[in-house]
Amino acid sequence: MRSLRLSANPSRRCMIASLAALAVACGLLAPISAAAESDPLPSWNDGAAKQAIVDFVKATTDQSSPKFVPPEDRIATFDQDGTLWVEHPIYSFVMYALDRVPAVVKAKPHLAKVEPFKTVLTGDREAIAKLSLHDLEKIIAATFTGMSVDEFSAEAKKWTETAQDARWKRPYTELTYQPMQEVLQYLRDNGYKTYIVTGGGQDFVRVYSEKAYGIPPEEVVGTAGRTTFSYDKNGKAFLTKDPKLLLNDNDAGKPEGIHFMIGQRPHAAFGNSTGDRQMLEYTAGGDGARLEMLVLHDDPTREYAYGPATGLPDTKVGTFTQALYDEAKKDGWTVISMKNDWKRIFGFETAP
Amino acid sequence: MRSLRLSANPSRRCMIASLAALAVACGLLAPISAAAESDPLPSWNDGAAKQAIVDFVKATTDQSSPKFVPPEDRIATFDQDGTLWVEHPIYSFVMYALDRVPAVVKAKPHLAKVEPFKTVLTGDREAIAKLSLHDLEKIIAATFTGMSVDEFSAEAKKWTETAQDARWKRPYTELTYQPMQEVLQYLRDNGYKTYIVTGGGQDFVRVYSEKAYGIPPEEVVGTAGRTTFSYDKNGKAFLTKDPKLLLNDNDAGKPEGIHFMIGQRPHAAFGNSTGDRQMLEYTAGGDGARLEMLVLHDDPTREYAYGPATGLPDTKVGTFTQALYDEAKKDGWTVISMKNDWKRIFGFETAP
Repeated sequence: MRSLRLSANPSRRCMIASLAALAVACGLLAPISAAAESDPLPSWNDGAAKQAIVDFVKATTDQSSPKFVPPEDRIATFDQDGTLWVEHPIYSFVMYALDRVPAVVKAKPHLAKVEPFKTVLTGDREAIAKLSLHDLEKIIAATFTGMSVDEFSAEAKKWTETAQDARWKRPYTELTYQPMQEVLQYLRDNGYKTYIVTGGGQDFVRVYSEKAYGIPPEEVVGTAGRTTFSYDKNGKAFLTKDPKLLLNDNDAGKPEGIHFMIGQRPHAAFGNSTGDRQMLEYTAGGDGARLEMLVLHDDPTREYAYGPATGLPDTKVGTFTQALYDEAKKDGWTVISMKNDWKRIFGFETAP
Repeated sequence: MRSLRLSANPSRRCMIASLAALAVACGLLAPISAAAESDPLPSWNDGAAKQAIVDFVKATTDQSSPKFVPPEDRIATFDQDGTLWVEHPIYSFVMYALDRVPAVVKAKPHLAKVEPFKTVLTGDREAIAKLSLHDLEKIIAATFTGMSVDEFSAEAKKWTETAQDARWKRPYTELTYQPMQEVLQYLRDNGYKTYIVTGGGQDFVRVYSEKAYGIPPEEVVGTAGRTTFSYDKNGKAFLTKDPKLLLNDNDAGKPEGIHFMIGQRPHAAFGNSTGDRQMLEYTAGGDGARLEMLVLHDDPTREYAYGPATGLPDTKVGTFTQALYDEAKKDGWTVISMKNDWKRIFGFETAP
């Protein structure tokens, strides 16, 4: 399911005027008199973070505001892992790569005796957790490339529908943060296009982005490899995924990916680690109203706590360094405390 | 101005039902009883080309048709130069590059004595026309890179608003083909997303795509270079355009760009040269209803005629080879004859 589109045309004014009435009639928007009572962010506690979001949306959509942003410029970008869903103790796309190793070894038996595949096949969790970044890159290259883009999507789709997170015993796609789902919806209801800008595999995230977030594949920017064009035995054209990097969508690669895929500087950006720093700086570098937010994982009971800013030891993933925390404070970015700002974490929990 | 977006939400069914009524009320769609009388393609003569487009749209949007395509899969891609607007005698983005040479030389005076800049500065049209592809690449690299993405956009915008085509004495953005504008609108009115997939510079086309075609920047795929992230003297982040190729959006680069930017195989694709061949083959390679069309420039009076299929000598641009023509006939692609299929070429001409 994805958003509906009405094309721009000469009767656009009529459409816009009528759409407001239609939206109210369908319960999409509360009528203005009741608007003050309805809360677009019910899973958020009152506080600076919630207020920053509401103030930004109001200022940028009010034609009389000096901070008004025309609809065609309303772009918001969201990191995924740790910002929109759980990234701890391991990124889901890495989990997928590890789960795919047996199938890869079946197709290429000589890999069974080659590291890091040998370690993964043992199933020894502690040994697997100790694999280096370089080892993980090898595993991702072997499991994400060498097949057609259609085969990759079919396999990844199957996995996302069956694999479960070990702690919550639910599909990963249910481990999205309910308060962030509300932000996505709130922004879209106010004319924003909401993009995922992830360091994870672009083709991987596109498999479930519509179902998990209401975001269509073309609004997912991620780390991507090159593809090779060729023909099958029936002469039909297809693309094969190559182990050659096209875009490393981390750090400065995020603004580069945003420029390449969207062509506009975002007005709002959400992240949770140093990998998102340049995306937030790029967002902040534009004129007019800009919103930069960072999710802080400080809730060891309901989710996880990690990163120096929490006073807890840092981990491999989601590095929210003290330097990033200091930059946020200095530049007026908003830090979201999962513990204090969110009434609930997941959609499957009882509504507040 | 761009398309409106309504986000998917629990009241979607109500919205969809009501939207049809609303669309009729606003004159966006004719009521069904009058639909047979209204013509979505008034600048097209009746014939196989027009029929192919209408048949495709009807089959893919009729829920009871075996060829029905769900709205989220409705992707159509269009080459630009020679398919959506005039490319003869020189691509507009090359014209822009040539026009920018004096400014580049002013900033870097030593280039005045270096070829091919020296030749361009003479203004000698015949000598300029003889520049090699390699020379043109040097000129494009020098004029399209080395500045911030914002500076490039501002300069290109200024040029598209003032520069004029020598034959028609009008801005290039008015030299779009009216029959193709109708196809774009007809597809969008039927739930298709219409992408430009151009061998021209992505950042260049994005400057005017909304105004010229109603296509927002994020729906333009084109040849693109890398960018470098840095900070200005006030500490604000910006991107600089680098002379390093990220995507060569020609030939097999078109399907690669489509997969990277859209993530789906198109259901319809329109081109006019061998540079579009793989895009059409990739489109044809999918299951279900697919539409592949090629614009043939065979109208020396109202526009231009070139390419072997016209019986006329080939030129540097828009190579519509006999081999491509034969492939189109063999594979059931439709060749659009500008001379026979189009009642008028441009929007500024008298309506038929």
